[in-house]
Amino acid sequence: MPKIADKYLQVDPWKVVEEGFDAGRNRVSESIFSLGNEYMGVRGYVEEGYGGDTLLGSYFNGLYEESPVTAHYKGIIQSLRFMVNAVDWLHTRITLDGETLDLAKSQFSGFRRELDFRTGIYTREFVWHTASGKDVQLTFERLISMKVSYLGAQRITFMPLNFSGTVQVRTGLNLAVMHEDQQRCYWKQRKQGEATTADGTGIAGILGETVNTGNRLFSGFRVEAQNAVNIGLVQEDNFIGRDLTLELQQEKRSRLDKLVINVAEKDPATRNEDLWQRGIELAEQHTKAGYDAAAADQRAYWAQVWAESDIAIDGDPENQQGIRFCIFQLYQTYHGDNPGFNIGAKGLTGEAYRGLAFWDTESYCLPFYIFNNPKAARSLLEFRYQSLPEALKRAKELDCEGAFYPIATIDGTESCDLWQHSNLQLHVGTAVAYGLRHYVNITGDKVFLYEKGAEMLVQISRFYATRGQWGQQSGKYGYFGVMGPDEFQLMVNNNCYLNLMAKKLFEYTLEVLGTMRDEASEAYGEMVERLGLTEEEQKDWRNKAQHMKIPKDERSGIFEEHDGFFDLPHLDIHAIPVTEFPLYSHWSYDRLYRYDMIKQPDVLMFMFLYSSEYSLEEKRANYDYYEPRCIHESSLSPSIHSILAAEIGRAEEAYKFFEFATRLDLDNYNRNTREGLHTTSIAAAWMNIVYGFGGMRSDGERLILNPSIPERWKSYRFMVTYQGVKLLVEVDQSEATIRGMSGGEVEISVYGNLVTIGEAGIRVPLRKAVVQ
Amino acid sequence: MPKIADKYLQVDPWKVVEEGFDAGRNRVSESIFSLGNEYMGVRGYVEEGYGGDTLLGSYFNGLYEESPVTAHYKGIIQSLRFMVNAVDWLHTRITLDGETLDLAKSQFSGFRRELDFRTGIYTREFVWHTASGKDVQLTFERLISMKVSYLGAQRITFMPLNFSGTVQVRTGLNLAVMHEDQQRCYWKQRKQGEATTADGTGIAGILGETVNTGNRLFSGFRVEAQNAVNIGLVQEDNFIGRDLTLELQQEKRSRLDKLVINVAEKDPATRNEDLWQRGIELAEQHTKAGYDAAAADQRAYWAQVWAESDIAIDGDPENQQGIRFCIFQLYQTYHGDNPGFNIGAKGLTGEAYRGLAFWDTESYCLPFYIFNNPKAARSLLEFRYQSLPEALKRAKELDCEGAFYPIATIDGTESCDLWQHSNLQLHVGTAVAYGLRHYVNITGDKVFLYEKGAEMLVQISRFYATRGQWGQQSGKYGYFGVMGPDEFQLMVNNNCYLNLMAKKLFEYTLEVLGTMRDEASEAYGEMVERLGLTEEEQKDWRNKAQHMKIPKDERSGIFEEHDGFFDLPHLDIHAIPVTEFPLYSHWSYDRLYRYDMIKQPDVLMFMFLYSSEYSLEEKRANYDYYEPRCIHESSLSPSIHSILAAEIGRAEEAYKFFEFATRLDLDNYNRNTREGLHTTSIAAAWMNIVYGFGGMRSDGERLILNPSIPERWKSYRFMVTYQGVKLLVEVDQSEATIRGMSGGEVEISVYGNLVTIGEAGIRVPLRKAVVQ
Repeated sequence: MPKIADKYLQVDPWKVVEEGFDAGRNRVSESIFSLGNEYMGVRGYVEEGYGGDTLLGSYFNGLYEESPVTAHYKGIIQSLRFMVNAVDWLHTRITLDGETLDLAKSQFSGFRRELDFRTGIYTREFVWHTASGKDVQLTFERLISMKVSYLGAQRITFMPLNFSGTVQVRTGLNLAVMHEDQQRCYWKQRKQGEATTADGTGIAGILGETVNTGNRLFSGFRVEAQNAVNIGLVQEDNFIGRDLTLELQQEKRSRLDKLVINVAEKDPATRNEDLWQRGIELAEQHTKAGYDAAAADQRAYWAQVWAESDIAIDGDPENQQGIRFCIFQLYQTYHGDNPGFNIGAKGLTGEAYRGLAFWDTESYCLPFYIFNNPKAARSLLEFRYQSLPEALKRAKELDCEGAFYPIATIDGTESCDLWQHSNLQLHVGTAVAYGLRHYVNITGDKVFLYEKGAEMLVQISRFYATRGQWGQQSGKYGYFGVMGPDEFQLMVNNNCYLNLMAKKLFEYTLEVLGTMRDEASEAYGEMVERLGLTEEEQKDWRNKAQHMKIPKDERSGIFEEHDGFFDLPHLDIHAIPVTEFPLYSHWSYDRLYRYDMIKQPDVLMFMFLYSSEYSLEEKRANYDYYEPRCIHESSLSPSIHSILAAEIGRAEEAYKFFEFATRLDLDNYNRNTREGLHTTSIAAAWMNIVYGFGGMRSDGERLILNPSIPERWKSYRFMVTYQGVKLLVEVDQSEATIRGMSGGEVEISVYGNLVTIGEAGIRVPLRKAVVQ
Repeated sequence: MPKIADKYLQVDPWKVVEEGFDAGRNRVSESIFSLGNEYMGVRGYVEEGYGGDTLLGSYFNGLYEESPVTAHYKGIIQSLRFMVNAVDWLHTRITLDGETLDLAKSQFSGFRRELDFRTGIYTREFVWHTASGKDVQLTFERLISMKVSYLGAQRITFMPLNFSGTVQVRTGLNLAVMHEDQQRCYWKQRKQGEATTADGTGIAGILGETVNTGNRLFSGFRVEAQNAVNIGLVQEDNFIGRDLTLELQQEKRSRLDKLVINVAEKDPATRNEDLWQRGIELAEQHTKAGYDAAAADQRAYWAQVWAESDIAIDGDPENQQGIRFCIFQLYQTYHGDNPGFNIGAKGLTGEAYRGLAFWDTESYCLPFYIFNNPKAARSLLEFRYQSLPEALKRAKELDCEGAFYPIATIDGTESCDLWQHSNLQLHVGTAVAYGLRHYVNITGDKVFLYEKGAEMLVQISRFYATRGQWGQQSGKYGYFGVMGPDEFQLMVNNNCYLNLMAKKLFEYTLEVLGTMRDEASEAYGEMVERLGLTEEEQKDWRNKAQHMKIPKDERSGIFEEHDGFFDLPHLDIHAIPVTEFPLYSHWSYDRLYRYDMIKQPDVLMFMFLYSSEYSLEEKRANYDYYEPRCIHESSLSPSIHSILAAEIGRAEEAYKFFEFATRLDLDNYNRNTREGLHTTSIAAAWMNIVYGFGGMRSDGERLILNPSIPERWKSYRFMVTYQGVKLLVEVDQSEATIRGMSGGEVEISVYGNLVTIGEAGIRVPLRKAVVQ
């Protein structure tokens, strides 16, 4: 795997720490120091203005703009929707003796920034040496409240080291922000001004609207400043702020706190006046408790998260830090408090991938939530239910029936402008069905299944029953002209993964319809009626599932990724010079697609998803065939390989792939963390530990735990919630203990034995990994 | 074949005639009444201004603009070049009693237009009934000189029927023209003004430059008006013209002649002043002889064309008209007088296909020129030699060696912005090689072969030797990730046509290198040195040719269009409702590509190109398999089917396909003639008669003629030049006569017998077509 760590940050079990400022790495740090609360997010950019390389990014989940696509043909999307860069609510300018602070130009020392996973607060500090000879210690803190989704808070502390005197500060809300990728500002100001609150302090607010989509955003702030001698209002186009003069005393700290309320509004029916009024009221309500109260709430929230979802590793400080960073960022990106949200490939941390959600949500992120926060998992599935009308429409555009879920979306519509992906990658629908089944099996939530899940299954099945075709020679059913998960095979027939997942989809849909008829007959009848579901149709699905083509070489037991894969010209991927990575940038586009080189697991992916159906021998044969052909150009890839390597007894290889997963962004393995975090990939890091070393399998009838431990670890522990029972799993080099933390008992399989786990738990000697 | 004629125009052996004006068909007529002389072309638009649906198009061969492409990946083109709409040199406005003539608003009667193939003059006439009650008979004539490439001429004749009085006319050169597809004007005026010529009359000129590419165009005109009482100069931005008042006498004709010189200049080194000067001088030189002299030259030119290239059909007036229209338009589009030109898919008759040349040039147009105008054929091959540097560059962009010729080009660079075509369609290079071989075999021009052809062959072979790969299972060489001629199979492996053509390419290149070494050893040595050609390389080509995969079912003798074609889901193409055509507009893009439906001949194409290598049985088996699967969505398709049908004895089918070919545009079969003529398809109509009914084959060692005749024809005759000898072939229902027209003798094969044809010729009884 041609991935090399770029070691730079300090290692700490609970923090990310950067000592000293590296302008060349600034964008990388901005991504890593991102804050978010699923409602909104900001990159760790320098709020006082920076003349160097920076991506000033502030995003709101689901707030989008669009640009037209020159579509040549029917079925190719006409408009591209993307998460739009929004208000810079941290905007600050600091001037001393006529010099405005700018780390690209000013003299400074002692630079340090840190992000604390236990508090959710990002702190940055340094000493500014002005040209006039003054030294000021500056500390910037910020948080985005996990308790109040609208609330962001910022604190700047000034301490003059060698003088007393004044400093000028401008702080405000800036809507004149560029969307870098499109090189334009998408915001039009609709209103701005000041509202005096009941307690006499003023809220300065601004209301903007996106130019093409009419999405709106209210932003209002209150300032609390120590030693301010003068405060004035500044109003410019797309900007509102306050100018303050602070009287600083030598070696005394002066604080300037700014509390901001941001309210995103997508409903066009809401009047600007009403949104404004609501924003002002929310600002009155949530800003007056001040910065310290917000920080205290934040600490309390994160304490709870770590109590419920921490993974502790003893003996591996780097991966300890890495996995906590992953969990921290996952919670920041999504925790299911707000309905209608999804998880963009880069969360709320950059413009790359346009804020769009892919199949990553169901395939890589969902397991974390299913086992840590089932409410959030359900909410993710709700997103697909809410966007069912869009998926029905999209299927029609592609001359099919049922629901075709988009490969990339921000609001349920397809937003990938590469037709070869948006029209040929069909595997989101099967991922949704798999995720639903997974969620229901682990949580037992049949209410959701029958209320909404079954309807999705029917519509998804309809799509797969109309998009597929019968091979003339094989007499088998399958999908022609598709791209599977492996994006290095652009347009193929009978992708093994897709065919298998479609077969499973049909079978699960039929199974659910069967149990629903018995267990919820009224709802079943109503649904059958509403959807016009016929017996004929179900027969058709059964027939197609039964005759689905699953390409496989029976002699070797190796599945063929698609028709003709085995004849593809061979490439020794290890002979590719490291300078040619990423291949997308260095190879002619068409050249990527004509080797037996694969980008990410495809056959191995379904062998993981349906782990219980394949023997160790089958897994080994397929791993041995596909792993050497896999270039891991997708950051999602190594974790799946690590999990399978662990299972088939390749402990060293499993650990090697794992290292990449937890520290993908911290060590900038893919050299593109500058664009944003690999949010969905870091979800895979959690799976890597729990499924890989923990040996968990959750696709069968009962939860399986077959714990192992990497040689270099002393011990580790993690928690999973199964059938409502929270299980704590602790593993050291000699034994594993599993116990229930929250009352109740549950039956699971440990090393092949059925055991009932309650509060007392069990303790078993660690079984050594199967040797190769 | 779901193609239906839209019968509208009058049938005439030497003319296209439209009686009455149909506003709904105006764009179709504009295309059909196009004029051109390979240097420039104008659509048959209404020059006096028209408020209805019109495409005002004036084009110059090779004059292009460009627009950027949002390229996502390496190897995908970054800029799109297209033939740009240029000066409206026919621009006229006619005002009488304050009413300006506009066929969309004015009252008129007796509308008729005609295009005479013997004169090359387009005439339009009608009586205008003004709102004030006046009736004027108006006649518009125009021509584009075949003798002087720069010269265009226009004559407007006025005859008042019920009054005497004045009419106001403005006539000029308008550069403020819209390029419809891009909805903008690409011209910036650089200079305009009047030059007084030696004889005292003035030339009004304008010099414009395209905004992005800096292509320039000088346009200057002289007016000769009878009964003009007042002539003034009009100068506006991007426009220069003259205002005239004509004194008309009842029932007397008054003429207004306009002679225009247009000079296109692509060399950036030429100064505007020099171009201007040159334009004025050319205008002085070529306009003073006047309209009648230009018309006389034109008649003389066309008389010569018909003497040399006519196809006469007795007993089929519609196809007689059709084939002459085809020959007329082919000559208008290209006749090889100007170096550096190529043949756009729609010639110079519309914006569609952007004026770009495809493989159509070598595959469909070249045979006509080889057998009628070998100099023009050579000039087309020269175009590929001149653009060799671009092809070398393009191969590098695709990570290959040698020369990769563009699938669509105006100047040698690739200009197809659909990567699936520009990166995957590799068959232009083999078509160039085939065309070269064809040209050399028929004309015997070894000078060109050794001076330029061999170098092209080496560079083309290098491309095919680096783009191909070895199949892991088959152990055979071939091309992976390609689109063959059949554009309904988007990205496949081992396209049979391409593999076969590449094999032939390697073989021909090696053969030419062998003979060149003997026959032109000095040039050979110089070339080997300059190109760094090695023995190793030639060995490699031999090896690859030898191990080329040619997919075929040996049992049935049917070639498999590509790996896996036989397993593709079957579609009964006759079950597709006619309302779904063209499929590109009615089917989701991806849906087109997953059936055994083909768009145009692919296997059948190479069986035609290498006809001598396949038995009738093989042709029949493959025709029977592929014909019912072919949707003919390419207008090039029916002629090839017709030729093969004739050969295998399907006379009725051959005639059915043929009908479509000659009258494709006259009867608007594809319902898109409004966008321009199918110039390269009409070239196929010539092949259809000569190869189809004439039974000519020219791919073997010796020219073959196996004449047949459709049942409904009395007789037909055509001419072909072979080895410098012009042969006249006359066929009636009982016999065929073949004789030399220009001295010299040549050996050919007729019905399998070698015969020597001289001026005396031979007469043979007609052999009935092979019965199925």
